[in-house]
Amino acid sequence: MSEPTTTGPLTQPHARATPSATAAAGGLAARAAGLDAADPLASVRDRFELVADEVYLDGNSLGPPTTRVMERLSDVVGREWGRLGIRSWDGSGWWTAPERIGDRVGALVGAAPGQVVVGDSTSVNVFKALVAAVRMAPEGRDEILVDAATFPTDGYIAESAARMTGCHVRPVPAAEIGAAAGERTAAALVNHVDYRSGRLHDLPSVTAALHAAGALAVWDLCHSAGALPVALDADGVDLAVGCTYKYLNGGPGSPAYLYVRRALQPRFDSPLPGWNSHADPFGMAPAYAPGDGAVRGRVGTPEILSLLALDTALDAWDGVAVADVRAKSLALTDFFLECVDALVPAGRVESVTPQEHAERGSQVSLRCHDAGEVMRVLLERGVIGDHRRPDILRFGFTPLYTRFADALQAARVLADVLEGTP
Amino acid sequence: MSEPTTTGPLTQPHARATPSATAAAGGLAARAAGLDAADPLASVRDRFELVADEVYLDGNSLGPPTTRVMERLSDVVGREWGRLGIRSWDGSGWWTAPERIGDRVGALVGAAPGQVVVGDSTSVNVFKALVAAVRMAPEGRDEILVDAATFPTDGYIAESAARMTGCHVRPVPAAEIGAAAGERTAAALVNHVDYRSGRLHDLPSVTAALHAAGALAVWDLCHSAGALPVALDADGVDLAVGCTYKYLNGGPGSPAYLYVRRALQPRFDSPLPGWNSHADPFGMAPAYAPGDGAVRGRVGTPEILSLLALDTALDAWDGVAVADVRAKSLALTDFFLECVDALVPAGRVESVTPQEHAERGSQVSLRCHDAGEVMRVLLERGVIGDHRRPDILRFGFTPLYTRFADALQAARVLADVLEGTP
Repeated sequence: MSEPTTTGPLTQPHARATPSATAAAGGLAARAAGLDAADPLASVRDRFELVADEVYLDGNSLGPPTTRVMERLSDVVGREWGRLGIRSWDGSGWWTAPERIGDRVGALVGAAPGQVVVGDSTSVNVFKALVAAVRMAPEGRDEILVDAATFPTDGYIAESAARMTGCHVRPVPAAEIGAAAGERTAAALVNHVDYRSGRLHDLPSVTAALHAAGALAVWDLCHSAGALPVALDADGVDLAVGCTYKYLNGGPGSPAYLYVRRALQPRFDSPLPGWNSHADPFGMAPAYAPGDGAVRGRVGTPEILSLLALDTALDAWDGVAVADVRAKSLALTDFFLECVDALVPAGRVESVTPQEHAERGSQVSLRCHDAGEVMRVLLERGVIGDHRRPDILRFGFTPLYTRFADALQAARVLADVLEGTP
Repeated sequence: MSEPTTTGPLTQPHARATPSATAAAGGLAARAAGLDAADPLASVRDRFELVADEVYLDGNSLGPPTTRVMERLSDVVGREWGRLGIRSWDGSGWWTAPERIGDRVGALVGAAPGQVVVGDSTSVNVFKALVAAVRMAPEGRDEILVDAATFPTDGYIAESAARMTGCHVRPVPAAEIGAAAGERTAAALVNHVDYRSGRLHDLPSVTAALHAAGALAVWDLCHSAGALPVALDADGVDLAVGCTYKYLNGGPGSPAYLYVRRALQPRFDSPLPGWNSHADPFGMAPAYAPGDGAVRGRVGTPEILSLLALDTALDAWDGVAVADVRAKSLALTDFFLECVDALVPAGRVESVTPQEHAERGSQVSLRCHDAGEVMRVLLERGVIGDHRRPDILRFGFTPLYTRFADALQAARVLADVLEGTP
């Protein structure tokens, strides 16, 4: 998969919305109804608490709650915390929850059990992963490559990791990272899907190129896990991090995760060797001795309420195949782009999300004049997306609960809002 | 306040439990009733969900839920997350919650507003604090002193902070840290109360001695915040960390906090400069620019469910003076030691918690042969303490909900258990 040098295509010029646009909308409505009727994931929507009459297209920022999360929290607070208290660390499985839930996340990103641990924020996990990667890299390498368009926190943390390990950071466009890696490159940190444009980067080939250069590949899966197939084991990824509050619906700020390839675990040397990662945490030994396996990525006591809400959120994936999710995601974003093209006045928005399926994540980002104000009005009118400064409208399509009718409705409201503005 | 070189006194030898012990227990029961009747904090117990017929003396490990926590979580999940979604980052105050709740914690540890931020685990905060302290220390200092009896994670993390900043760690008994600090000492990390023995260290004098040596004082308040007065501002502490799931009752693994003295904030140079600490986080600038104030201690997106459960837990402190809590804590531990002395067969347990009030935290630790098995039986019989290997029984006394009658009951059951064992 090669990366084009341009961003996505413009929406094509067409006539302003008129009676013909109304007719087009009618055809689109029939299409949406047909697509929804044929959707094998349609019933999964019932697993979520969604607001009636609202089109929620911000699951790439914060997934909605599942129907069972309150019941679980009620049990965790009332019985596990209130009744069993500290005995729940063993008796209710709290202590081992980061690995157990890590395995559930792992199943969604192509990681066999024992390699993913849940806990801490994405930023903290980026720090662990990059410092550990540099420590595992061949001697004498002092460069960390970072996706030049990265979500900012990855870049900030990479600078700190570099500073504290005697390295420097070199920003490189994601598509060029494989070619840019050289004999000084210790590791590269790449976003699997760009948070802003929704562009999907080529994980297998970038990883292979990094390995060919003797460097480690660290991937940030925040915008891909739960939205499309990720094959960490099969593609030979070394380390990966991601959040769980977007396509995994874990709740606001739900804990992030860290993947450390099994073969690398014995050499994973954490910069945050907290007692939860110790071989015998309750031995309370003054000397640190790391545990074996994914547990080595843990630090301190996990935030159990947030962690177990995530556990329950993952039940929404029961019986769901990621391949089906990907197929629906592409169909939804195709359909939304088609609706925007048909309904929105010509020249008012430009998609920066690639048209090519192989290069598209699960969101559509539209460049739009006055995007902040446009999103404000969209929110008022029940279309929930978000705005990234200065000029991007982001719409996330989360196949577990988004309908084709929602995509059409969002395009309709967007067209209506833009109709009246310059 | 000077530190004795021995641990606490033995319980005095006395006759085995006999009819006279039964009479003693009767007198103690009357005493307990009188003390409970006169307790100005007695009604605060109603703010907690406690198990009937259970004596909960493990609030120094995990505080119990307050009565309002489920109602709050229900609102956070149903309305804030479910209905408002991402709009809650602004509209429900999620984004600023770490500072706002930090100020509430600050009020309990003698910190004026704007200096405490809640988030991450204690271990992660120890890393931030120590690295930042070393970076703020006078040039050429390469030594970090660590309380030799520290809770292990502090020592593990201190080693990592030292390794990553070109320093080394020197373990020193807490009482000797002030005297041990020299011209190479960058900072010292000290536990305010020892997790194992319950010994209270002399924060003001150790801090003053560190400052006299030109070093920074970093305190771990895990076992003191919420149990006794802490005066971070008044005593000139530089940095401090602590957890919120013990005496602050925030819930299992509820987020920890970081105090950075206001005067030091402009020089606080975090090793974990995540986007939440940026001056303009939603500007998404590729270059890091730290925000002003406590926010500089933030890293990634906070775990909102755990964070807001803590917020509600802190309501239990409404109208409660820490001075009253301290007075009751000392009275409770005095009374428990007295009951143990009167009821437990001679020579079976030895208190390692100091007798001197000025040296005692809010727990009683008893050395006991076969402590693991003894605690197992105590738990079965409704006395909830915990066991620290190899031979320590820990009993935490949390004045917000523990009664004098509970202290007596715990001693009675302990006596009964030990009566039948060698």
